[in-house]
Amino acid sequence: MAARVQRALETPGLCPYADDPYAVSLHDISERFRSCATPVRVRRFAHAHHAWLNGVTWQIANRAGGRMPGLDDYLTMRLHSAGGEPTYAMLEIVNAAEVPAHEMDSPAVTALTEMAICVDALDNDRHSLAKGAARRQTDQNVFTVLTHHHRLTEQQALHEGIALRDRVLVRFLDLREKVMPRAGRELRRYLTDLGHGIRGNTEWALRVPRYLSPRDATTAPGDVTAPETPPFTETPLAEGPPTHHLPTIGWWWDDLA
Amino acid sequence: MAARVQRALETPGLCPYADDPYAVSLHDISERFRSCATPVRVRRFAHAHHAWLNGVTWQIANRAGGRMPGLDDYLTMRLHSAGGEPTYAMLEIVNAAEVPAHEMDSPAVTALTEMAICVDALDNDRHSLAKGAARRQTDQNVFTVLTHHHRLTEQQALHEGIALRDRVLVRFLDLREKVMPRAGRELRRYLTDLGHGIRGNTEWALRVPRYLSPRDATTAPGDVTAPETPPFTETPLAEGPPTHHLPTIGWWWDDLA
Repeated sequence: MAARVQRALETPGLCPYADDPYAVSLHDISERFRSCATPVRVRRFAHAHHAWLNGVTWQIANRAGGRMPGLDDYLTMRLHSAGGEPTYAMLEIVNAAEVPAHEMDSPAVTALTEMAICVDALDNDRHSLAKGAARRQTDQNVFTVLTHHHRLTEQQALHEGIALRDRVLVRFLDLREKVMPRAGRELRRYLTDLGHGIRGNTEWALRVPRYLSPRDATTAPGDVTAPETPPFTETPLAEGPPTHHLPTIGWWWDDLA
Repeated sequence: MAARVQRALETPGLCPYADDPYAVSLHDISERFRSCATPVRVRRFAHAHHAWLNGVTWQIANRAGGRMPGLDDYLTMRLHSAGGEPTYAMLEIVNAAEVPAHEMDSPAVTALTEMAICVDALDNDRHSLAKGAARRQTDQNVFTVLTHHHRLTEQQALHEGIALRDRVLVRFLDLREKVMPRAGRELRRYLTDLGHGIRGNTEWALRVPRYLSPRDATTAPGDVTAPETPPFTETPLAEGPPTHHLPTIGWWWDDLA
């Protein structure tokens, strides 16, 4: 099914799977993209969507097999399964500002995109923590991975998970500042909006029933109310490269600028 | 495992999975590519490799589940599982000639790349037919798909499969001729080499033990000798859009030039 939906997205013209409502919907979106964006941007979105479907497949396979991945594998999977890739691939379409390929595919910009996705994914893990606990879910998230494989208490895992997220965000801000001065107009727009995406993701989490209804995702607007002024801090819990051995993301701290 | 190998390919610098011989080998190849090709070309190869691994996963899942896909699904799968994407993504690296993104991602060039892969895949199906028959394999290929789902005899399926392959090759040649006059230097080189790839694939098939040893793939140089002058024809078995309902490839016959 996933493959047909993906192929529908990639196929210009008539929807190839007219009897599949998911394929038809995604094809409709892709045709709208084609009508307002260049083939480069549409293709980037298609690649991103493909990677997302694969990440989700991996996540479902883990769940079906009762496998709790290690932290490094979890992060590799989560970079794809979180849905950040297609979300951020829409920035260029919405802004009508195409980042030239030599900038977009550079290691620094690739890493910055992945970092933004990683922060979002770890934030989502945190936002769904209350719900997971209320429903006694032991699904894969950065905290269950840490308690499972690193013999941490829930409190320790919470601290480690947030520290990891803060490390990535600090590195994102640091590297972005280094890349900005020699970035073209479209890339500056894109990198700025990656940051908006990180902020937007937490804003969104304060409002959606998905996180505010611990027992039932379909109860709207949710039986938990987010604080009107959520607490925040200017001080990261940790900075610098991760202390765990995490080769899938460790290279983000290399000299990429 | 596939995900780690893929991540090794995507990670610049030290190999993230030093104890995995497949990851180390592919990472070594990617570092060589990085030393001689631009990030755009390396990223295109990485995307192609990702898609290939997914296609193979799909194929293996079908085999494990005893599923014989329909012809349209089979073609979608085969476009990825055949390995043509990473092969053709190396053209730009070998030629040191990068096709600009607005040309590479255009519907016409996307379709031409897929058509070349499709012809190669169907040729491979045909080359391995003798072997499959000798080993009584009933694995997924265009002929078993046709006999299974379209109630054709083996002889009819052979005719239909070759006719489909010829239709795609004729369309490839036709569309390529239309695209060439307004293609830049690098795109002309790329499109020419897609054609060389189709020819090279059949040349290769005449020599490899894989096809020449019907009973045992490891017997070299093979207990069947290819004819010194293989017969060939200038006349395709069929032309025009496929007569079967094949939405995954049907759009190749749209006005893309």
